Formats: sequence, C-alpha cells, structure tokens
Amino acid sequence: MTTDEFAFIDWLRQRTQATERVLLGPGDDAALLRWPGGPDCLVTTDMLLEGSCFYLAETHPGSPGAGTARQIGRKAMAVNLSDMAAMAGVPVAAVVSVGLPRKGGRALAEELYLGLREMADAFDTAIIGGDTNSWDGPLVINVTLLGEATPRGAVRRKGARPGDRLFVTGPLGGSLLGKHLDFTPRVREALALHAAVALHAMIDISDGLAADIAHLCAESSCGAVLYADAIPIADAAHALADEHTPLEHALGDGEDFELVFAVAPADAETLLQAPPVPGLTVIGTCTAQAGLWLEEKGQRRPLPPLGYVHTLS
Amino acid sequence: MTTDEFAFIDWLRQRTQATERVLLGPGDDAALLRWPGGPDCLVTTDMLLEGSCFYLAETHPGSPGAGTARQIGRKAMAVNLSDMAAMAGVPVAAVVSVGLPRKGGRALAEELYLGLREMADAFDTAIIGGDTNSWDGPLVINVTLLGEATPRGAVRRKGARPGDRLFVTGPLGGSLLGKHLDFTPRVREALALHAAVALHAMIDISDGLAADIAHLCAESSCGAVLYADAIPIADAAHALADEHTPLEHALGDGEDFELVFAVAPADAETLLQAPPVPGLTVIGTCTAQAGLWLEEKGQRRPLPPLGYVHTLS
Repeated sequence: MTTDEFAFIDWLRQRTQATERVLLGPGDDAALLRWPGGPDCLVTTDMLLEGSCFYLAETHPGSPGAGTARQIGRKAMAVNLSDMAAMAGVPVAAVVSVGLPRKGGRALAEELYLGLREMADAFDTAIIGGDTNSWDGPLVINVTLLGEATPRGAVRRKGARPGDRLFVTGPLGGSLLGKHLDFTPRVREALALHAAVALHAMIDISDGLAADIAHLCAESSCGAVLYADAIPIADAAHALADEHTPLEHALGDGEDFELVFAVAPADAETLLQAPPVPGLTVIGTCTAQAGLWLEEKGQRRPLPPLGYVHTLS
Repeated sequence: MTTDEFAFIDWLRQRTQATERVLLGPGDDAALLRWPGGPDCLVTTDMLLEGSCFYLAETHPGSPGAGTARQIGRKAMAVNLSDMAAMAGVPVAAVVSVGLPRKGGRALAEELYLGLREMADAFDTAIIGGDTNSWDGPLVINVTLLGEATPRGAVRRKGARPGDRLFVTGPLGGSLLGKHLDFTPRVREALALHAAVALHAMIDISDGLAADIAHLCAESSCGAVLYADAIPIADAAHALADEHTPLEHALGDGEDFELVFAVAPADAETLLQAPPVPGLTVIGTCTAQAGLWLEEKGQRRPLPPLGYVHTLS
C-alpha cells in the first residue's frame, strides 16, 4: 500500500454509510456483514498483479521473490486467509477472477488453480465460482473470501487499550527469501487465541510490523512502544545481510503474514503461562499517547510507522 | 467468453466437489452457499479489464463503446447485479478491487467509485470493502457481489423442460451503441417474476441471445426453437445497419443484459394475461431434442449457438 492508497481508503470511508447490515465497512482486514438468522459474514478481497505484487518464475526467473504459477495461486488464496485470520474468522468459501495472458493462459490457469486449491483445501475452504478472462495484459488474479465470525464476534483493528500487551505469532523479517510464498496463514492460531482470551484488536503483518502496528494503533486511538530485544527475528532476516540490520528487516519487511494482537495484561499472563499456540512473543505495550516508539538499551526513540525497510534508515 | 474459457470452466467443474455448504458451484450466473440459520448466500464476481472488456473514453475517445471512468464503474457493478438478477436473488453488498494505472490513478479511482456507488445505491447494495493497488498496467476492476436467495430459492440455468416457453424481458441487439454502458440490471423484474410464477430456469444475456439460450439448454439437457418474428429487436440493432440484419444483431450481440427464462405453458399464459413487469415477450419453446433452431416463415433451421454476430454469417 502507498500513502495515496491509504488516502483513497480514507476518502472511501467518509463516503460509506453505516447500515443495519454493514457492521464494518472499508478499512479493516475484512468487512463484516450481518446475515439474518445466521453468523455474521466476513468478506475480504485481494488482487494480485503481475509485475507489481508478484513475478512469475516461468517468465521472470531472475526476479527476487519470483514464484511459479502454482505458488502464486497458493499465495493469492493465502493472503485472503490471512486477512480472515486477522478477524478471527472461520473461512468458508472463495471466488476467483483471473485475467490471463492469451499465450499459454490455459496452462497457467490450471497451475494457478492447483495452487489456489491446495491452500483452500488446507483450510476447508471451497472454491465456488469465479470469472475467467483472456487479455493482452499481464496476469491478474483476484480472490474474494467469505467467512463466518465466531459466536465471540470478529476481532477488529480497533479495540486496543493503553496498557494492553502486544503479541506476535512468529519470527519476522526477510520474507522475500521465501516465506512470502510459502507462509501458512494463521487461521487456526487466531481461532485458538480467540477461544482462550479476549483479543482486543488484531491485524496481520502484510505491510510490515511497524506499519501494521501503526494501523492497529490508529484505529484504536492509542500508541505503542516496542521492545527491540523482544522482537523475534527470522533466520531469513539475518540471511538477507544487506545495509539493514536484522532488526530493521523484522520491523520493516512486509509479507510476514504473522498476526499481531493486543490483550489485557492479565490475559497476556494467561497466554504466556499456557500458550494455546506455539511461537507467541510479547513485543510491546500499548500507550495512551499516540505514536510509535522503539525501546532499545533503556532508550526510547520514535519509530517511523511507514513500513518497508528502506523507510527505517 | 471464448471456447477456451468455457473448456476451463468445465475443467474446474470436474474438480469441484459438492459439499453440504456448497449448493451450487462454478458454471452458473452465481454460486450458492448454504448459510446456517439464514437465507442461502449468492456470490458472483466479474473482472473488467481495460483494452479487453472496455475502453476508457478518457484515454481512447475514438474506440467503439468506450465509456468514461464513471460509466465503467457503473457497468462493473451492473454486470454483477445482472448476474444476481439471473438467479432471482436480492443483492446485499459488494467488495471492489482495482488495479490503477500509476498516473492519474487517484482521480480515476474516485470516478470509478462514484459510478459503482450510483449503481449500487439504486439497488440498496452496500460497498463494504475492497483492495486498491497501483501498477504499470491498464485499469483492472473486479467486483464481487453477495446476495440472498428468496424463500422460493435461487433460479438456475438448469431446470427448463421440454414444452416450456422461453421469455425475454426486453428488446435485443446493438447494445454497443450505448446500452452496454447504461443498461438497468433486471433485479426488480426477476424478483417480481419469481414471486408471480415458477421460473424453471433463467440466465442474463451477456454473451448474446443464441449463445446464452444454448447455455441454459445445455444445463437443462434440452434444446430450443426460437421464433424469428417474435424476437423483440432494439432500435439500436436497426441503427447499426452493417452487413448483418437487425435480427442477426438481436440473436448474436452480447451485453444486452436482459433476462431469458423458461416457464411451463400455463405459467406463460398467466404472465401474458397479467404481466408483473413490462416488456415480456415469448420468443421460443424448449424441445426434448438437444440443439438450437430458428423458425422463420414456417421453416426451421439450425441456429449456431456461439453468440457474437460474426458467427451467424
């Protein structure tokens, strides 16, 4: 997401009226729709564009992060499942639209579908329809995923309170080396956590840890301090070994697709003493004062919230 | 749709398992999902690609059928509403994904949204979320629309029986002259018809009358004879005045977005004696024998089912 895209979402939100049916409109990981007589319906959608969101290994074998058509299909489903996880929703069914290049489009479509299906099957999600087009442009794939909120309700970005502890579900940074293609969306983890404690707010890490915590804090009208020594750093962040430190990669890299969530201190204790899922780490605390800080060796300094490692330098 | 795209949909359908939740998978105008405790959920999605599905009047002012960004936004919502109409469903909410060109993308996004919203508002449909991207490619817009089946159930392409009368909701042909951009999806008409009689099968005319009746017949395991003199021909089909006759345009042109439906002869009488909506015309009869025929001046001849006027010559 660029700042322009966030500005446009703000413009959209100003123009979206609340209705009896629309419990949550644009601006969270998924929208929430009241379904009469049934569980609330969660809806999320993601469009992946070749040359912008991904490179095909078949046509761009040298590009960093390039994936095969099957991997891209897998990812297109997985990013939506990750959004569903961020709302603590149960995925149910998806529709898939594709814009296929005219040459080799059919073979590409089959590989995409096998990847989509592999990921969907792993989370009991049916692919129930779609739209298939051919054109002269690059590959475009759009997935819309429907899910159900649990009886405990959907978890939003809004709801974190000063004093809440911020957790992350796994190590961060360097996803470009592979995790951005082969990550497991934290659907099961989200549901287990939601059943165990009261999740005040949650988001998945797509733009980057600092950027996504900034989103969560903005919606919750709070700030946050992160503890540099506590942030779990992925091996890949060390392996990247460029002009940025592993910590900078963990704070700024996008597409880790772990979850960040806020819980009251007592619930944080509960989770630490009997973790319902592995990999949980406390990485910070919400503050009444707006803003984002990094605490390192006893010093606090402001942390730029924009995500992507290049903005940290 | 090309024959390749239909072949791919067949490939998909062979790979889609029926489940307790999935009442109807790929291959109809919308998918149908059981929603526990509530009305069944209809889901349809359409992707519009610049240079293939549409031309922007702002950048291609000379192209036949080019529309402004606002008209394209309107159409992107309307084609989904037309699919919902074809199932006799009640539209509820939509999500919208866009791939925007980097230059002028924000202004384009606002115009698209105003068009989307205009059409959505006209059918009490909320735009509840989406995904906004910028890239170096042409404009891409994907809408996914959710709706509810009525207590009478969704109407499918499957279900027409030999002897059923085929109706159309309005005049056909020449939509390229304007109707493809400013049509009104037949949502209200579908619901009124569904309340009045037992609709055996229904489809909206997107590929062309002959092509779409062929789809309906294929799903219903029947054939159809169409009466040349009965087919209502739009003024635009006369105005096109090219190497094809107005009847050929009415049979072959795509994007009329009227509905074709099949009802038992007794229900046909009911509709003709007290039409619940204006513009209804009987244009044919379903046959036990598979195939499509045109009856003209007492003669029957096979009618190529492929749609688009150029295949008729």
